[in-house]
Amino acid sequence: MSRVYNFSAGPSMMPEWVLKKASNEMLEYGATGQSVMEMSHRSKEYEAIIRSCESLLRELMNIPDNYKVLFLQGGASSQFAMIPLNLMTKNHKADYVTTGQWSKKAMAEAKRYGTVNEVASSADKTFSYIPDVDAMKFDPEADYVHITLNNTIYGTKWPKLPETGNVPLVADISSMALSEPLDVSKFGVLYAGAQKNMGPAGLTVVIIREDLIGEPQEGTPTMFQYKIHADNGSMYNTPPTYSIYMCGLVCQWLKEEIGGLENMKKINEEKAAILYDFLDHSKLFKGTVEPGSRSLMNVPFVTGDEELDKKFVAESKAAGFVNLKGHRTVGGMRASIYNAMPVEGVKALVAFMKKFEEENA
Amino acid sequence: MSRVYNFSAGPSMMPEWVLKKASNEMLEYGATGQSVMEMSHRSKEYEAIIRSCESLLRELMNIPDNYKVLFLQGGASSQFAMIPLNLMTKNHKADYVTTGQWSKKAMAEAKRYGTVNEVASSADKTFSYIPDVDAMKFDPEADYVHITLNNTIYGTKWPKLPETGNVPLVADISSMALSEPLDVSKFGVLYAGAQKNMGPAGLTVVIIREDLIGEPQEGTPTMFQYKIHADNGSMYNTPPTYSIYMCGLVCQWLKEEIGGLENMKKINEEKAAILYDFLDHSKLFKGTVEPGSRSLMNVPFVTGDEELDKKFVAESKAAGFVNLKGHRTVGGMRASIYNAMPVEGVKALVAFMKKFEEENA
Repeated sequence: MSRVYNFSAGPSMMPEWVLKKASNEMLEYGATGQSVMEMSHRSKEYEAIIRSCESLLRELMNIPDNYKVLFLQGGASSQFAMIPLNLMTKNHKADYVTTGQWSKKAMAEAKRYGTVNEVASSADKTFSYIPDVDAMKFDPEADYVHITLNNTIYGTKWPKLPETGNVPLVADISSMALSEPLDVSKFGVLYAGAQKNMGPAGLTVVIIREDLIGEPQEGTPTMFQYKIHADNGSMYNTPPTYSIYMCGLVCQWLKEEIGGLENMKKINEEKAAILYDFLDHSKLFKGTVEPGSRSLMNVPFVTGDEELDKKFVAESKAAGFVNLKGHRTVGGMRASIYNAMPVEGVKALVAFMKKFEEENA
Repeated sequence: MSRVYNFSAGPSMMPEWVLKKASNEMLEYGATGQSVMEMSHRSKEYEAIIRSCESLLRELMNIPDNYKVLFLQGGASSQFAMIPLNLMTKNHKADYVTTGQWSKKAMAEAKRYGTVNEVASSADKTFSYIPDVDAMKFDPEADYVHITLNNTIYGTKWPKLPETGNVPLVADISSMALSEPLDVSKFGVLYAGAQKNMGPAGLTVVIIREDLIGEPQEGTPTMFQYKIHADNGSMYNTPPTYSIYMCGLVCQWLKEEIGGLENMKKINEEKAAILYDFLDHSKLFKGTVEPGSRSLMNVPFVTGDEELDKKFVAESKAAGFVNLKGHRTVGGMRASIYNAMPVEGVKALVAFMKKFEEENA
């Protein structure tokens, strides 16, 4: 077996521990005589799997009891509509902060369902920083404030949370879920496409404060109503059963093999430090993000020469470092170093970058 | 290894050939050094997988070139809204035929977006038959006619297609997709949740005639617009990548191991005949569906005695026949004998039923 170091922004690397367990259990899960994929979602066997996944998530993320955990489909892109359809129901207005393409998409969708106020934006410098959090002025009448806590494409992360008073804070945490502890009680809604740190593509996890689950806007498709999914324990219709099982395995790995999110954060900080430290001292490569806004998960960098960037991407791929090409809208390179990327992977990448630097100085 | 015979209505049995291949490829797909689950959906490696799945589906189902194949999420329940939101756009009315709980749900959702005419219903006899197809009168001004071609819960299948003239016929084929050939050109839209015959839960396949893909109703969430998905080759956002890979493996199995849908139909007819023939002659068990409306896939039956039904379900489970309990809204028993259920599974079940009959006469 020769597995590559996969720096994909998502879907992305999964822990080998998880993949091995999934492979071993593919034809028969425990003593059930079935694959998890074949289980009726209404069976006792499967009920145990989904509830175990939820309970591990609650434990790892320290989710308060007055929050529901929903296992949905459709990715963050579906949440871009579900959030306004379900939450923009009192004053029909919301505050958005624009820190990249995904928050722009979220805002554009929300504008279709109410009045949107763009509180701040970092579009002026290609989203290479998070706007001054202390300077943001939020509307106390807004139904919610929406932010993208980690920006996959531009490699930024909010250095701290904004003060929104009584207005619920809604955050897209797709590319940082489970990478470090978060104080869930500071949020009204957290949502994530699973395909970075939580499991396979096709599962969307929503963590929502119970008092925010109410009557949605008129015309909201039944499947886009949080209330329907909350009232039915994510079993209104058939959930993405296998992806939830995989998410449970990832949680088990985080708990048993890593020791929880505090430990995961330390490992992620170690990995990020190796890469950022190299970038800060390199004569060829440089990071594109302001130091105070750097993501632990997504690290974009450039040589400053497009041809050299291409050469690097090609040579690194040949050497077993795949998906280092930057997002099609940004160019350059990007190393996504999610939970499953081992420290050795980052060290090996930096060694390769050093060699490339020497050869191309 | 001791795999059970799983008669679940869905998620349901998958071919062992498929599960073994998936298990073997879990850590490394071909020479890519990655699991399919870890692949960027924008990578060449994954592009090949999704296009191969589509091309196998097109070949197996003989899908004409003027139809798009969309790989979506959210199950048939999401289609219940997507169909009216995208198709009820000319005269804002549609015809529905009610043949069970799922078609009722589809109709209820459509009523939220336009005028719905219930053309026929079999509610009077607990949906144990398909209403007279020749007697149905459709509105030539309707934007479409919606039917559920196979009814999972009640075990009925339309004996023939209705004549709808120029009005597009839309059919939910969740529980019969890939079980037999269908003339796709007779339909405007076909849709299916994958979790019966096509792959894991979390994938929804929509086959839609290109001229029906247009501007949806105002306010339709972006992710509920067929046009968005069609224009982006099902890659507007991250699709359920692994489930699509599994669907491709199922198609490969159908093509290479079974020899296509004509052969699959023969096998399915053989299985169904074994079970129906037994039910027709049994002194204890009897089928609940009128002979002319019987499904090849879902076979509900009863003893006529609730206590005996319970005893049968318990004893059959202990003997390795699982998920034979009827739907919670119907009671009795139901054997779902999808593509992956081997002939031996049905023979073994009938042998067990005979023994139970003798012991409980």
